[in-house]
Amino acid sequence: MAAIEEELTLLGSVGSPFVIKVEIALKLKGIEYKYVEEKLGNLSETLLNYNPIYRMVPVLVHKGKPISESRVILEYIDETWNQNPILSSDPYQRALDRFWSKFIDDKCVVPAAKTIFIPDEKEREKAIEELYEALQFLENELKDKFFGGDKIGFVDIAALFIPLFQEVAEKQLFTSDKFPKLHKWSQDFYNHPVVKETMPSKEQQFAYFKARAASLAAPSK
Amino acid sequence: MAAIEEELTLLGSVGSPFVIKVEIALKLKGIEYKYVEEKLGNLSETLLNYNPIYRMVPVLVHKGKPISESRVILEYIDETWNQNPILSSDPYQRALDRFWSKFIDDKCVVPAAKTIFIPDEKEREKAIEELYEALQFLENELKDKFFGGDKIGFVDIAALFIPLFQEVAEKQLFTSDKFPKLHKWSQDFYNHPVVKETMPSKEQQFAYFKARAASLAAPSK
Repeated sequence: MAAIEEELTLLGSVGSPFVIKVEIALKLKGIEYKYVEEKLGNLSETLLNYNPIYRMVPVLVHKGKPISESRVILEYIDETWNQNPILSSDPYQRALDRFWSKFIDDKCVVPAAKTIFIPDEKEREKAIEELYEALQFLENELKDKFFGGDKIGFVDIAALFIPLFQEVAEKQLFTSDKFPKLHKWSQDFYNHPVVKETMPSKEQQFAYFKARAASLAAPSK
Repeated sequence: MAAIEEELTLLGSVGSPFVIKVEIALKLKGIEYKYVEEKLGNLSETLLNYNPIYRMVPVLVHKGKPISESRVILEYIDETWNQNPILSSDPYQRALDRFWSKFIDDKCVVPAAKTIFIPDEKEREKAIEELYEALQFLENELKDKFFGGDKIGFVDIAALFIPLFQEVAEKQLFTSDKFPKLHKWSQDFYNHPVVKETMPSKEQQFAYFKARAASLAAPSK
């Protein structure tokens, strides 16, 4: 049963992987929140006021106080509501959680996005090479059903980019032969009831990536 | 008096700001450790074994277990040894600590390094503009003697890049007129006994940055 938490609002955009990460964390803990949709390219004054530096979703507002940056938000959620922990309780394991989560953002998300957004074939090939190298490290790291063991944790949530980009790339990013453990993980992750409930439709994901590409191509303000 | 901690080794390179961050954290807590010097461009097998992904210092090895990435190491230190906390005890303030620390790494360190390393004048001017915009956010954020209040905390340690780059750039990066609070903070930070004791000499800093530039320019392995 969901705990009712007052004054908790998530500013997001449908299809944004960074927003989905926060939603999964809140739902895993059974925390109710209000969701406010922000339009990419036409963000509200409220959003700009809460996140004047990065001007991006997600922003989580708890009792009037805004928090931005998805990894920072996830740690805040985990420290504020103790049920169903997302990070490990052991300091060394927690360091590894943070290390791999940052690794995924730095070394997987960036080249994966390039494989989709960059038209130049040579650059795209270079990005695929980088992505494969990074995925191989993750493949070797995956020891259990999930990175978090038998349940979804901090690294699993960070890694949602992998099946998501795989969907957007029409399953052309990697094969089950090349990364059998990650392939199996992707299926288990997608079939988790909370993930299933939270993931946007394929159409919504495509629409988001299209809008994001347009917003990246637009002159910065 | 320093607490003696067995089996704690820091792999570093003299002059590396990321290593200095870890050293300041350990010294603020009075933790003794063994220091092993790594040579940029000719890293030891041990280092490559401990940090095969980023192939960089610092690596902290505690009871045989390696931790890399300076922000991850700082959090590990703070969670493992409770004396003289580096991060705030309040979850929201801790979220802000993490936010600003990441902000400094993303938005200050990168353009500040460009102002020093990039020969192209136009690109350098663009980097200075980006850096000033970021420093203005920090200037507005500084409310007390230190970002951590009356004592050095997580954000102060992250921000050591500012006076350090200012030194390397022969005090040409910014003026006290433009950023009076950051200027005052730089002085207070440098005069803190632990920082004073830890900071490398100007010659060591220059030697590090020269080696780093050479290692960045070399073809990647």
